[in-house]
Amino acid sequence: MSKDISVGLIGFGTIGSGVVKLLQDNADLIRGRLGARLVIKKIADIDIETPRPVSVERSKLTTDVQEVLADPEISIVVELIGGYTHAKTIVLEAIRNGKHLVTANKALIATCGNEIFEAADNEKINIGFEASVGGTIPIIKTLKESLAGNNIDSVFGIMNGTCNYILTRMTSEGKDFESVLKDAQALGFAEADPTYDIEAVDTAHKLAITLSLSYGKRVALEDIYREGISKISPLDIEFAGELGYTIKLLAIAIRRGDVVEARIHPTMIPFDHILASVNGNFNAFHLMGDASGSVFLYGQGAGMMPTASAVVGDLIDISRDIMAGTWRRVPLRSYKKDQIEDIDLLPIDDVLTNYYFRFSAVDRPGVLSKISGILGKYDISLSSVIQKENNLDRDTGVPIVVTTYKAREKNVRMALEEIDNTLEGVVLGKTILIRIEDESLR
Amino acid sequence: MSKDISVGLIGFGTIGSGVVKLLQDNADLIRGRLGARLVIKKIADIDIETPRPVSVERSKLTTDVQEVLADPEISIVVELIGGYTHAKTIVLEAIRNGKHLVTANKALIATCGNEIFEAADNEKINIGFEASVGGTIPIIKTLKESLAGNNIDSVFGIMNGTCNYILTRMTSEGKDFESVLKDAQALGFAEADPTYDIEAVDTAHKLAITLSLSYGKRVALEDIYREGISKISPLDIEFAGELGYTIKLLAIAIRRGDVVEARIHPTMIPFDHILASVNGNFNAFHLMGDASGSVFLYGQGAGMMPTASAVVGDLIDISRDIMAGTWRRVPLRSYKKDQIEDIDLLPIDDVLTNYYFRFSAVDRPGVLSKISGILGKYDISLSSVIQKENNLDRDTGVPIVVTTYKAREKNVRMALEEIDNTLEGVVLGKTILIRIEDESLR
Repeated sequence: MSKDISVGLIGFGTIGSGVVKLLQDNADLIRGRLGARLVIKKIADIDIETPRPVSVERSKLTTDVQEVLADPEISIVVELIGGYTHAKTIVLEAIRNGKHLVTANKALIATCGNEIFEAADNEKINIGFEASVGGTIPIIKTLKESLAGNNIDSVFGIMNGTCNYILTRMTSEGKDFESVLKDAQALGFAEADPTYDIEAVDTAHKLAITLSLSYGKRVALEDIYREGISKISPLDIEFAGELGYTIKLLAIAIRRGDVVEARIHPTMIPFDHILASVNGNFNAFHLMGDASGSVFLYGQGAGMMPTASAVVGDLIDISRDIMAGTWRRVPLRSYKKDQIEDIDLLPIDDVLTNYYFRFSAVDRPGVLSKISGILGKYDISLSSVIQKENNLDRDTGVPIVVTTYKAREKNVRMALEEIDNTLEGVVLGKTILIRIEDESLR
Repeated sequence: MSKDISVGLIGFGTIGSGVVKLLQDNADLIRGRLGARLVIKKIADIDIETPRPVSVERSKLTTDVQEVLADPEISIVVELIGGYTHAKTIVLEAIRNGKHLVTANKALIATCGNEIFEAADNEKINIGFEASVGGTIPIIKTLKESLAGNNIDSVFGIMNGTCNYILTRMTSEGKDFESVLKDAQALGFAEADPTYDIEAVDTAHKLAITLSLSYGKRVALEDIYREGISKISPLDIEFAGELGYTIKLLAIAIRRGDVVEARIHPTMIPFDHILASVNGNFNAFHLMGDASGSVFLYGQGAGMMPTASAVVGDLIDISRDIMAGTWRRVPLRSYKKDQIEDIDLLPIDDVLTNYYFRFSAVDRPGVLSKISGILGKYDISLSSVIQKENNLDRDTGVPIVVTTYKAREKNVRMALEEIDNTLEGVVLGKTILIRIEDESLR
């Protein structure tokens, strides 16, 4: 005789269908591991007519979320509608009604996490949100549990599959951003409006959650510096290759004493670093713990079944707590509630890193020395220079590519402004800046 | 006011010192996450005189394990003495005395796991053994918890840092096995008697544990087929490179219906697979779940602080159970006790895979057709052939390298035996066989 644990689903889209399918297909395996059956009792969605890739008894479907939220038999509510307006109302009501919660909603947790976690603490509710960052990758459990004895010195993440897919194809095929984006949209790897992915909003949500778990602190989403991938050109990818780098959209968190550096931007990383081998729509996290050293996790960051795997992992986790007669062993942010405070992020101006600049200059002797003179004025030293005569173009000039030793971001901005303004007629167009991570990945 | 949880350590070597150091260095962080202090109360070792890299009050040190095992205040015993004779006695006594247990001892768990787990179940004892497989990598928690909703379709693991270090250097430097081994011994990356690592006994222990968690079953260690790396030559590494492969010592588990294929041997894997980028003394696991798809985990498989990170992760995990008033949420093998049965392993004879053969043949027309004739008789079809005239050597002949489509291991053995016996004078010396994993890694 085995106990049943009743689950209510809100949102019956792709992921919702995946969760239902997985609970059906692997029902025996899950019961064997848990010692209870996980039973979907109700599924609420505004559309219950369109056929889904799984079959569900008609009587379980409803358009009224109250049938899930108010059902006293339902122990765990899975929220899969996305966004943070309607979803937030639903989640807070579920908590008030004493339901444990599983969600894949990174926007909700990154934007309203503080309020939701506080409500959950007051009601002794557990919240599983493994699927919100890195899809199927166990990044949240690893940070909260496996590496709980470590200070997290750094996190370098490829957290958006769409951006990584586009950059991978741009790199392997030499195509430009716009044409690969169009292809990705046609293939279903990018949304019709790709802004949320391309401009790194999605990545910022995920980095905010990762930061808050790494350091057990509250993070203000708007404090995270972010740049998307739309300005990356095949020419910069080619020069990166010559320099031994590949370009990835990296989410970066580095502990600097009491403050944390947090930024998201296209980044050149060495070919032979394991992050450089993350291709296509995969996600990956390179964590550096002060005891563990490098820990690297990799998998599908999205998709029906990979995301369902993480949701069902959370359902089993919470159910194991229920079976053990406890309500939550691990604090929501890994730190006990009385330890939680706001995180102090280093302003982007104060970041020290290596840079790649591509100047478009007229083909005339002395240009490089003018450029390096201004850079030197701002304490920016060159570590390498590539100058190609045969790339001359009357309108765009010859590319001069330089990489730098560590420099301060504020100085870099001032130097580039001075170069672009005072060397008019010599340096043509706006200088391209791409940051390089090399030593800090070792 | 925060609670103290008392820990007793048995074995004060490298890992033991790492655990003490980590609990000292990160005491505040651990208390912040756990809501209790983890306090080392007693440390037992046969040698308490030799200075360690950490300082401990003299009064905590003892040569008498009973001072740890019989101390009523100690809640968790950490066993770090290794081996499975003395360690087993100690662990069983700790369990009888009601102590929870953390161990990094793969030999103990792989060899005596059944008896120890049963004793723990009877006494309601929790056992953490994350450090026993993959060092700092959260492979055990990922299999038991994060991927608990999945059937594990396959595991491909690089589980021994010494072997991977040697193969990496042989590949990058073109040196032979013996000279790299000597160097590794001088640098402390290999033991004076390297048999346990080189002959894949260590890997077999780790694969046995991984198998038992993936499938929730008991595994007989001696049923796992294993081959070490001592016969790998620079010539085979070179040919592998020409074919687009790199050679790794892989531990392989593949689900085939109701049986599981389990084998350990040097394996050619494609350059562009993420496992091929695991270099030096790192460990890695490529898991394929039926819902999750590829999940890849990578990190230090050994070493003082990386292993201590895993031990302390287990200490925090068990302490969180203690704080929550429960004794164990997750079954020791991920499956409930009444579900555990013996695993059915596929005999090596019945394995179907791709092969690389290197024949040493006399330089005479028709040799290849004789070889392929015998292979064909055993249903072995060639997918590629490399024949190099200029490598002729009077004693060893010219190398003829072939790769095959999928073939049955038993047929391969019979075919090679027939070739080596009946083509005497044409095929010189014993034919080299290395298995290839390609399709199954996709």
